[in-house]
Amino acid sequence: MASLSSSTHCCSSSSAYSNSSSLWSNHHHYYISNLEFSAISPKNPGSKKISLQSKGRPSSNAILMQDGAIATTATTVENEAPTKKSKDGLLSASPPEEHKEPIGFHVNNDQSSVSITVVGASGDLARKKIFPALFALYYEDCLPENFSIFGYARSKMTDAELRNMVSKTLTCRIDKRENCGEKMEQFLKRCFYHSGQYDSKEDFVELDKKLKELEAGRVSNRLFYLSIPPNIFIDAVRCASVSASSANGWTRVIVEKPFGRDSESSAALTRSLKQYLQEDQIFRIDHYLGKELVENLSVLRFSNLIFEPLWSRQYIRNVQFIFSEDFGTEGRGGYFDNYGIIRDIMQNHLLQILALFAMETPVSLDAEDIRNEKVKVLRSMRTLSMDDVVIGQYKSHTKGGITYPAYTDDKTVPKDSLTPTFAGAALFIDNARWDGVPFLMKAGKALHDRRAEIRVQFRHVPGNLYNRNFGTDLDRATNELVIRVQPDEAIYLKINNKVPGLGMRLDRSNLNLLYKARYSKEIPDAYERLLLDAIEGERRLFIRSDELDAAWALFTPLLKELEDKRLIPEYYPYGSRGPVGAHYLAAKHNVKWGDLGVDE
Amino acid sequence: MASLSSSTHCCSSSSAYSNSSSLWSNHHHYYISNLEFSAISPKNPGSKKISLQSKGRPSSNAILMQDGAIATTATTVENEAPTKKSKDGLLSASPPEEHKEPIGFHVNNDQSSVSITVVGASGDLARKKIFPALFALYYEDCLPENFSIFGYARSKMTDAELRNMVSKTLTCRIDKRENCGEKMEQFLKRCFYHSGQYDSKEDFVELDKKLKELEAGRVSNRLFYLSIPPNIFIDAVRCASVSASSANGWTRVIVEKPFGRDSESSAALTRSLKQYLQEDQIFRIDHYLGKELVENLSVLRFSNLIFEPLWSRQYIRNVQFIFSEDFGTEGRGGYFDNYGIIRDIMQNHLLQILALFAMETPVSLDAEDIRNEKVKVLRSMRTLSMDDVVIGQYKSHTKGGITYPAYTDDKTVPKDSLTPTFAGAALFIDNARWDGVPFLMKAGKALHDRRAEIRVQFRHVPGNLYNRNFGTDLDRATNELVIRVQPDEAIYLKINNKVPGLGMRLDRSNLNLLYKARYSKEIPDAYERLLLDAIEGERRLFIRSDELDAAWALFTPLLKELEDKRLIPEYYPYGSRGPVGAHYLAAKHNVKWGDLGVDE
Repeated sequence: MASLSSSTHCCSSSSAYSNSSSLWSNHHHYYISNLEFSAISPKNPGSKKISLQSKGRPSSNAILMQDGAIATTATTVENEAPTKKSKDGLLSASPPEEHKEPIGFHVNNDQSSVSITVVGASGDLARKKIFPALFALYYEDCLPENFSIFGYARSKMTDAELRNMVSKTLTCRIDKRENCGEKMEQFLKRCFYHSGQYDSKEDFVELDKKLKELEAGRVSNRLFYLSIPPNIFIDAVRCASVSASSANGWTRVIVEKPFGRDSESSAALTRSLKQYLQEDQIFRIDHYLGKELVENLSVLRFSNLIFEPLWSRQYIRNVQFIFSEDFGTEGRGGYFDNYGIIRDIMQNHLLQILALFAMETPVSLDAEDIRNEKVKVLRSMRTLSMDDVVIGQYKSHTKGGITYPAYTDDKTVPKDSLTPTFAGAALFIDNARWDGVPFLMKAGKALHDRRAEIRVQFRHVPGNLYNRNFGTDLDRATNELVIRVQPDEAIYLKINNKVPGLGMRLDRSNLNLLYKARYSKEIPDAYERLLLDAIEGERRLFIRSDELDAAWALFTPLLKELEDKRLIPEYYPYGSRGPVGAHYLAAKHNVKWGDLGVDE
Repeated sequence: MASLSSSTHCCSSSSAYSNSSSLWSNHHHYYISNLEFSAISPKNPGSKKISLQSKGRPSSNAILMQDGAIATTATTVENEAPTKKSKDGLLSASPPEEHKEPIGFHVNNDQSSVSITVVGASGDLARKKIFPALFALYYEDCLPENFSIFGYARSKMTDAELRNMVSKTLTCRIDKRENCGEKMEQFLKRCFYHSGQYDSKEDFVELDKKLKELEAGRVSNRLFYLSIPPNIFIDAVRCASVSASSANGWTRVIVEKPFGRDSESSAALTRSLKQYLQEDQIFRIDHYLGKELVENLSVLRFSNLIFEPLWSRQYIRNVQFIFSEDFGTEGRGGYFDNYGIIRDIMQNHLLQILALFAMETPVSLDAEDIRNEKVKVLRSMRTLSMDDVVIGQYKSHTKGGITYPAYTDDKTVPKDSLTPTFAGAALFIDNARWDGVPFLMKAGKALHDRRAEIRVQFRHVPGNLYNRNFGTDLDRATNELVIRVQPDEAIYLKINNKVPGLGMRLDRSNLNLLYKARYSKEIPDAYERLLLDAIEGERRLFIRSDELDAAWALFTPLLKELEDKRLIPEYYPYGSRGPVGAHYLAAKHNVKWGDLGVDE
């Protein structure tokens, strides 16, 4: 089957989206010189020619305007992006309203630069995910011509040492083209290291100098990826913002969870961040939103008519979001123990997917339109109560001669920890579309398998002519749509089918789309997509502060109760299917977990 | 996945159906003796115990009652099935209203017998389909204990010669169990031959004698399969009915198409048949209705909630029924030339599938309920007009050094024949569900491939957020459900999916259910199902006379016009995709044939 698309450049997720965006067409970077130039609106390709005489001082330095709307009407263009004094008098080098804009790389390669500073460069995430993702983007020609990558951390390291460290994690996994080794070398040449304290303005001033050097007078766009523990977030943000912000381009900061521990601490964190950054400079990453099948969720739903009538309480009996890991904390429980599975997986990853799943059709695919709909879902949801939650913690288990440790056997975990390593919850969206439909979640560590999936269970057929052919378990005769996020990405739809033969036996068969059978290309890591989006200013997959507030509002009372009452989790054996309580929770809502069968 | 079923005996298509049938539960064969016996109603399994003292003359000959309703209330049971004088005074050995009844084989093996007489035993169909199907049923233990098979034809042949002829076509294709050779031998022992004229009562009287001998006093049930040319149909029916009807069991006749050439001749044929047979003794076979995926059509539709809201004009843009053969008449055009592709394929096979596809939900899966709904569809349809029909005839074509013949090169075909070997048609059902939805059919010989399939094309997504991602051909971006009847039985649903990767490219992928990947067992031939159904009295897949009348009413004016005006078909090369006119016909109704792609 031929592809139906569209997008001219594989890397430009923004431009692909902009096709259907009404907002974007007015917001482009224009390269302004004394020459006449063309602004091509994606809405009217080739139709718009704007003649704009710069009446500002003529300059050989190109100016990249953040706001095309101004550029198209402006008569005087200043040689600096708008700046703004924040409350505490610090300069914030970003326009007050920075809209997403397709970066002008392809138009304007010589004139702008992008630097990506990985703060916490020696950490696990940086080495395992961020640097490899950046290389993959480079390898696929998705990075702008003038880019540089900085590792920033406290340890002393030379550029060469950083390159050596980074090189160990790079692979030529995509396409396996011949010139991979060469590409790798070129990539590593663009990688630099700067040693500094996370709370030292001086060290960031030094970084700023190095960045300026590499920018060589080009418009400076700077992305900071904060891969550091939460207690030093704000210090690093302050220093980066005050001492290493871009003077004439954009400055963006990617922050990782945890975004606080509850409503209060999250709000405090947001307030602190906003001392130094505008909302649109903050890119709160939830890497689940970057996963291929989560991205596909909206495509599946909104571009296929067959799903349109089905997506509501009228046809859907329940929806399940299932996350399981087949390993425990394995000596790294320190961070986890302070948060627990509900904060680590449910309140963010699963809830985000739920919101995407359940949202109304957005006006467009624009980030703000999508995030507006997501926040509406979250705000329509019932606050979780202990009645609808089950918590568990894994205990030691011996199987086949091997003894698997209990959670509290982890040396980094307090012996008396009650932190849940498993949780199940029933959530409800009290709006017209979903009233009464249970949205079940479960997430756990040290379970029998590793998976992340969405399961949509449909209702019984009313007046089913074939009821008698189904045997006793009519629940097994309902349709189910499964979106398997990992591993082995797949979409399948369980349907009832006649077993071939002379009798009239029915079984449940799958209409199947197994990605590895259909698509030969390897699926990019979530971090690639998200890093590219951040560079391109695409905010669709990042979490806005009001979404975050709404998410915490749902979970905070529950978390408070759990911790105040020191509720004891149900212990389940390492490698099992988790606490039995999860079944009773499902049964209470007339649901059966869909992941119970052998080949489900 | 475990099977959801149900049916205890693989062979009993009836009993599987009866589970959900309200009518059937009252119609069973009861073995009546002086003993108390149990009648188990499938509606209330195990609940009903009927004590029935036979007050008729006690007899060691068991009585098989045709009408359970009577049996359950009767106080006197006669030793003969009801008989009835038909208009011409001939005895018709069948109850006036013979309801479908699960044969009492398993209960009552010793007391009843079934004989199957293949009239026209030396013909192609008999050798290639009927005898092998009967063996397959025997092999799978689907035939009653006391069965015999008679070949009847004009040529002289001994039983041994018939057995020899039959044995050549038998294979142990199913299950390949060890005892196949043995089973084959046993089966052949039950095969006999009787030579006679098709219009000779005396010859049928002789047959009757042989049948009686084999029945050995058991209740006699007789099935006649008329595999003979239409001009001798009635003669054979008369002789079989008058001289070889069962005296105390049922007599059924399977008749093959053609059922006339038009409304008039079909009505005449029905009138003639009904001189000798009741409607419920006539089993008009349309072997397409016995095909696995046609059988599955109703299961798919009525046992899967996800299809329920989709099955109407609101979501379905058009439906296509496609039949193509990759060979011509190849020296056997004599019969075909008199009928043409419209009568041979469209007016029966494709129209029957259309009616099944489009019918309203029947009250039950009972034959009469289903046939009632089918006839309503046919009666709601617009009579075909020449405007909505394209006809074609294949012409000679040379390819790769091989010259393929034209239709009129066939020596059995008149040189100036205008008989269509291809036809395309747009049909409309003017009811609330389907108003305005084109139902397109095409059928042809000597085309580029061999297939039979149903394609359901869904509408465009209203307000599609992803329209811009689809490129220019939005028609290719709509969902399509394909039910491939042959070859390689499959069901697949075309959906739009995000191509994995960083951009937002969409493609059309399939949610797939390929039978050979899912089910290891070979799919039974249509004739097996239909023969078994006829033996079991299941009429669901046979065509009732009012259905036939309605079907002819749709096509007769068109056929008349074609022949009266001697309309010239569009010539298309042997092995091509058929006449171009089929595309214009589709385009006129805003449809594109779904079978155009390489891997569609």
